[in-house]
Amino acid sequence: MLTYDITKAKGSIYEYIYQCIKSDIICAKLATGEKLPSKRTMAKNHGISTITIQNAYDQLICEGYVISVPKKGYYVASLSGMTKMKKETNISYHIDVPKENHAGSIDLSDNRTDTERFPFSVWARMVRNVLSEKTPELMEVSPTGGSMRLREAIAGHLKSFRGLLVDPNQIVVGAGTEYLYGLIIQLLGAEKTYCIENPGYKKLSRIYAGHHISCRYANLDEMGITCSGLEATRANVAHICPNHHFPTGITMPAKRRYEVLSWASAQSGRYIIEDDYDSEFRLNGRPIPTLFSIDESETVIYMNTFAKSLTPTIRISYMVLPVHLANLFYRTLSFYACTVSNFEQFTLAEFINEGYFEKHINRMRLYYIRKREKLMEAIGKSRLHSLCEIIENDSGLHFLLQLHTNQSDHDVQMALEAKGIHVAALSEYYFVQSDKEHYFIMNYSNFKLEEASQVFDEIASVI
Amino acid sequence: MLTYDITKAKGSIYEYIYQCIKSDIICAKLATGEKLPSKRTMAKNHGISTITIQNAYDQLICEGYVISVPKKGYYVASLSGMTKMKKETNISYHIDVPKENHAGSIDLSDNRTDTERFPFSVWARMVRNVLSEKTPELMEVSPTGGSMRLREAIAGHLKSFRGLLVDPNQIVVGAGTEYLYGLIIQLLGAEKTYCIENPGYKKLSRIYAGHHISCRYANLDEMGITCSGLEATRANVAHICPNHHFPTGITMPAKRRYEVLSWASAQSGRYIIEDDYDSEFRLNGRPIPTLFSIDESETVIYMNTFAKSLTPTIRISYMVLPVHLANLFYRTLSFYACTVSNFEQFTLAEFINEGYFEKHINRMRLYYIRKREKLMEAIGKSRLHSLCEIIENDSGLHFLLQLHTNQSDHDVQMALEAKGIHVAALSEYYFVQSDKEHYFIMNYSNFKLEEASQVFDEIASVI
Repeated sequence: MLTYDITKAKGSIYEYIYQCIKSDIICAKLATGEKLPSKRTMAKNHGISTITIQNAYDQLICEGYVISVPKKGYYVASLSGMTKMKKETNISYHIDVPKENHAGSIDLSDNRTDTERFPFSVWARMVRNVLSEKTPELMEVSPTGGSMRLREAIAGHLKSFRGLLVDPNQIVVGAGTEYLYGLIIQLLGAEKTYCIENPGYKKLSRIYAGHHISCRYANLDEMGITCSGLEATRANVAHICPNHHFPTGITMPAKRRYEVLSWASAQSGRYIIEDDYDSEFRLNGRPIPTLFSIDESETVIYMNTFAKSLTPTIRISYMVLPVHLANLFYRTLSFYACTVSNFEQFTLAEFINEGYFEKHINRMRLYYIRKREKLMEAIGKSRLHSLCEIIENDSGLHFLLQLHTNQSDHDVQMALEAKGIHVAALSEYYFVQSDKEHYFIMNYSNFKLEEASQVFDEIASVI
Repeated sequence: MLTYDITKAKGSIYEYIYQCIKSDIICAKLATGEKLPSKRTMAKNHGISTITIQNAYDQLICEGYVISVPKKGYYVASLSGMTKMKKETNISYHIDVPKENHAGSIDLSDNRTDTERFPFSVWARMVRNVLSEKTPELMEVSPTGGSMRLREAIAGHLKSFRGLLVDPNQIVVGAGTEYLYGLIIQLLGAEKTYCIENPGYKKLSRIYAGHHISCRYANLDEMGITCSGLEATRANVAHICPNHHFPTGITMPAKRRYEVLSWASAQSGRYIIEDDYDSEFRLNGRPIPTLFSIDESETVIYMNTFAKSLTPTIRISYMVLPVHLANLFYRTLSFYACTVSNFEQFTLAEFINEGYFEKHINRMRLYYIRKREKLMEAIGKSRLHSLCEIIENDSGLHFLLQLHTNQSDHDVQMALEAKGIHVAALSEYYFVQSDKEHYFIMNYSNFKLEEASQVFDEIASVI
């Protein structure tokens, strides 16, 4: 007679009985085809209610360990497929989680914006407003391109700040530019060849590789990507940062812009992805007008992110599609749900509409201008002064330092690393071999001013 | 002499001057190579400061419309690439935004959970707690797999609710399961062939097609996907819902589970994606144990989403990777940023840790049980009673209605559509031809009880 010691039950008795029978079936103590006691017998035997046994049997039936044969009773099911699988020898039990890079050291390769300056209390107020307002749309699933409220707010911002006139329906909101690149790849088709800038943003090539997309590189001259380089790659899609190239800082002049646009319109199916990732922080003058705004052939996809302009801990980016691509998007990809939660979309919309976004950008721009001035001063006063050239293009949150040294970039980096200073070399951003030695990237958005003189002296001592 | 009417300036004068000169260059009123007036002359001529002209010229130089020649002056740059691009005739100006489906009608095809029952005020309290606590990690970029706080909370939930013991590092949080499918495709490689269930969730095939992934279908028998079907597709990855298949409601019994696991472990590189999308709402008894929990060969990727269990307006899903895939993920894809904002991750973690998630699930399960009972009652009382069979598998938020009719599914649907009732047929969920006519899916999570008798009478009158 099947008996279990129900005093050992830790949770409900039904669950305990279910677990006991299941274990006995799995380890074959109860054989295939064996008849189980009736519910009543089983209940009586354990001094518990029939309902409890019923529940345990039901669970076993539902999971397929037991079969109920009408008017006959309960039988152990056949588990013939259950060949106890041996653990393979190559199975690992240790998870190798990547360490946060350069923790504890001074990291000049970190190009994330300063999160301490995120307008936390204003943002918190917007969140509370959205929660207390609780409009019906807040609990409605937003369209695939994002909530209309946020897209209208972005369109308004693009108009006033960027001089761009776009229909909110051309805007697609997503959880980060990396996610949007994936959508673009699906939208334009996997047979396209992409071209990125050399040097350029290394993550891009990894994203295209991750998506198994053919990706080539075109060299830059002093005006940015060259059309001859573009032509030579036979690419269909050029992914570029014309307004402030990373890491060289080049701003593409008008002449080259028209050339690139004319490359795109010369053959149907050619597109330009205009990555405008830090246009908000151009330090002097107006932001450079976008390629999108002077494109008359619907070849430019404009992309931007709030990860730079607000904080990387909020994952909201957007792209602006030319009209025919917006239509293609709605026809082919509208089955995707928008990847940003309504709460965040509505909060950001309120933040923009109330004018806080523009205020924040203006405040940050001033802050970065002052920071840069102080850094220049610190270099001027340091021993590095006579050993370097500062190359800056009046924009963005980094500049290049050309060091007068004969050491290799790698040697300079190793020597600095030993002193707890991490710095990226321009040569690392080349996908194909380059002779651009001795240029180092100074990302100062996250750099502490009080460490500046020490860092510049250390650099001087190393070279 | 270059003169502009500065009384027409709407914004700053520097911007007005800059715009005027730029327009004149673009329309060739100022020719390539032409010399611009000196800053002083220009300033005097307009009665404004030299600084203003300087700013306008700087902007033009920066954008490449003007060149500054040291000691000589300012010249109009060559814009040779600028062949005024003609608008192509195939360019569209109208954006065709897809309409929200079946608005205003009774939609039984809508399988989204009832957002009205989202515990809004508790959620709002968690948000406020997170904002007022403002831990330093809240403003730190979370690791690629998600913030540890949320991953630990999910691991705790999986342990208590699902009996799953996993290392939080095996969990990858993302903005929706659709996004996570994309990550899996990148993780396992594009050369894999995927197999989905026939019938099954239609969006899956669109997602795999969107990623240009080879995708096949295997038929189900009464125990779920068949291993012979799986073998025949020569697929490497089986994407299945063993715990509650949509739309048939089949729960895969133990025997088949072991068979499917043994299929996966028979060849290296085979994997199972276990989609556990609505396990929280199994209406009776314990949730069915996962495939992941009985897999000893590291072949199962477990997936779940809070879109079903909380609200579709919050975009948080997660997957649990077997250890060797977690390591592969960190090695190859950790350059991706996590797609969920910290605010939402921390709020959800708090919501789970404070026990509200479990309470919510329990409350919703009870609510759905009662709703289903009332629906069954309504069918019993309606004229439909004698004209249908109810097929339900004790789980999930839908059941199947087999109608006794000779009409085609399409005719039934059209007749109901004319009465403002939208209903999905099981036959629509087949990727390859099927003879499963006359089965209709009753999603009741969003269905209003007070409309039930009317709807069932309408269905009866149509068939």
